[in-house]
Amino acid sequence: MKKLFVIGIGTGNPEHLSMQAIAALNTTDVIFIPTKGEEKSALAAIRTTICERYISRPYELVEYPISARNEAIGDYTQRVFDWHDLIATSYAEMFSKAPEDATGALLVWGDPGLYDSTLRILESVKTRTDLAFDLEVIPGITAIAALTAAFAIPLNTIGNPVTITTGRKLAAGWPDGADSVVVMLDGNKTYAGIDPENLHIYWAAYAGMGDQILIEGPLAEVRDQISATRDAARARHGWIMDIYLLRQS
Amino acid sequence: MKKLFVIGIGTGNPEHLSMQAIAALNTTDVIFIPTKGEEKSALAAIRTTICERYISRPYELVEYPISARNEAIGDYTQRVFDWHDLIATSYAEMFSKAPEDATGALLVWGDPGLYDSTLRILESVKTRTDLAFDLEVIPGITAIAALTAAFAIPLNTIGNPVTITTGRKLAAGWPDGADSVVVMLDGNKTYAGIDPENLHIYWAAYAGMGDQILIEGPLAEVRDQISATRDAARARHGWIMDIYLLRQS
Repeated sequence: MKKLFVIGIGTGNPEHLSMQAIAALNTTDVIFIPTKGEEKSALAAIRTTICERYISRPYELVEYPISARNEAIGDYTQRVFDWHDLIATSYAEMFSKAPEDATGALLVWGDPGLYDSTLRILESVKTRTDLAFDLEVIPGITAIAALTAAFAIPLNTIGNPVTITTGRKLAAGWPDGADSVVVMLDGNKTYAGIDPENLHIYWAAYAGMGDQILIEGPLAEVRDQISATRDAARARHGWIMDIYLLRQS
Repeated sequence: MKKLFVIGIGTGNPEHLSMQAIAALNTTDVIFIPTKGEEKSALAAIRTTICERYISRPYELVEYPISARNEAIGDYTQRVFDWHDLIATSYAEMFSKAPEDATGALLVWGDPGLYDSTLRILESVKTRTDLAFDLEVIPGITAIAALTAAFAIPLNTIGNPVTITTGRKLAAGWPDGADSVVVMLDGNKTYAGIDPENLHIYWAAYAGMGDQILIEGPLAEVRDQISATRDAARARHGWIMDIYLLRQS
């Protein structure tokens, strides 16, 4: 494989694709699609739809399973490192099977820079193997942009910083001095366990997609509604992607 | 005017336009283009190019001047509020002249949620006038995504937060506990005045555009090169848009 595109596809709405992403897809020979059990088959289907809709030349779809993280490893960072190693190994195997002059593509949810480990894993593939492909990253619509667009609100207050963080980190405390905090990767409803005083929440599930769900209001008033809605949506879809902005008032 | 689109156009590369943005443009009757003296004529030209390239139906371009901020007002927030009031007044005047059943569009650099005041100003138009248009926001590629894509790097380190801030705020001190800090709106080369120890900088001007400039390295080693490059680029183009990521090592 001579070149690999890492393409941000936005948040599940095929209309999020940029002209640049579509142009890149149309110079691609092999597209690698991750599959991870039933929960993620909907996500694989979105990637396949994007390919069918936008690519007007022959291409090969290569599906690959993504192993789950080993939850027996106690340390979070070590657990992630180990998981990345497993993925790097499967990437290296796939890439080495592609034709020498082929261009490949990985389709990344949202934007490849934001809370996604593809670039980190590719770095490790390059370090550990003699695979020498060029790498080009195509930026995508982030879940943050999809969230603020859905509510038609600015992300920041005038001239002030924004903190992007995870549920895990938020659980450890409100970021010092922040008035606008975006929380991603929160599988544990962290919003429901923090002190809600003076906090307004803007919550979106499936942001930007056709079945997007939006709830906003004072955190104390809407957190239970969010949790109930989240549980029901997750049960209905088999998976959920959600994100929220907390703003101090 | 019955509806207004606020469309994120990405960072000056017409290829950043999403399919959703192009679809929205093609239901638009009137497109409002800001002009602000010579410095911004290049930016107006990019907006015009986007319209010419992607819109396949008749539309009207309405140019409007954006007044400068009144630097005589000492307090920063008050200065910004006053400036937004001026823009809100000119928006209200333009919108009231558009046909009653027209769909309008404002084209916003990057994403409308991120360090852009269009949505805040439109809120004020709605509050202060009886104009009752629907508002729909189309997310765009952010300068942050363009920056990390250009360097093919993740924005965050594993599981850790990211702070997005301004030059003005960074000058007041490194954000507590942060290891990855994105700085936007820094007209004062704040990176050159902070303690560079253990900081790596990824700097981009015109990120994502054809004449993109990239410099990265330990801050202490590359900050002078960035400043010289920035001055030269600004003189050559008549304007500059730059952004950087500082990472603690």
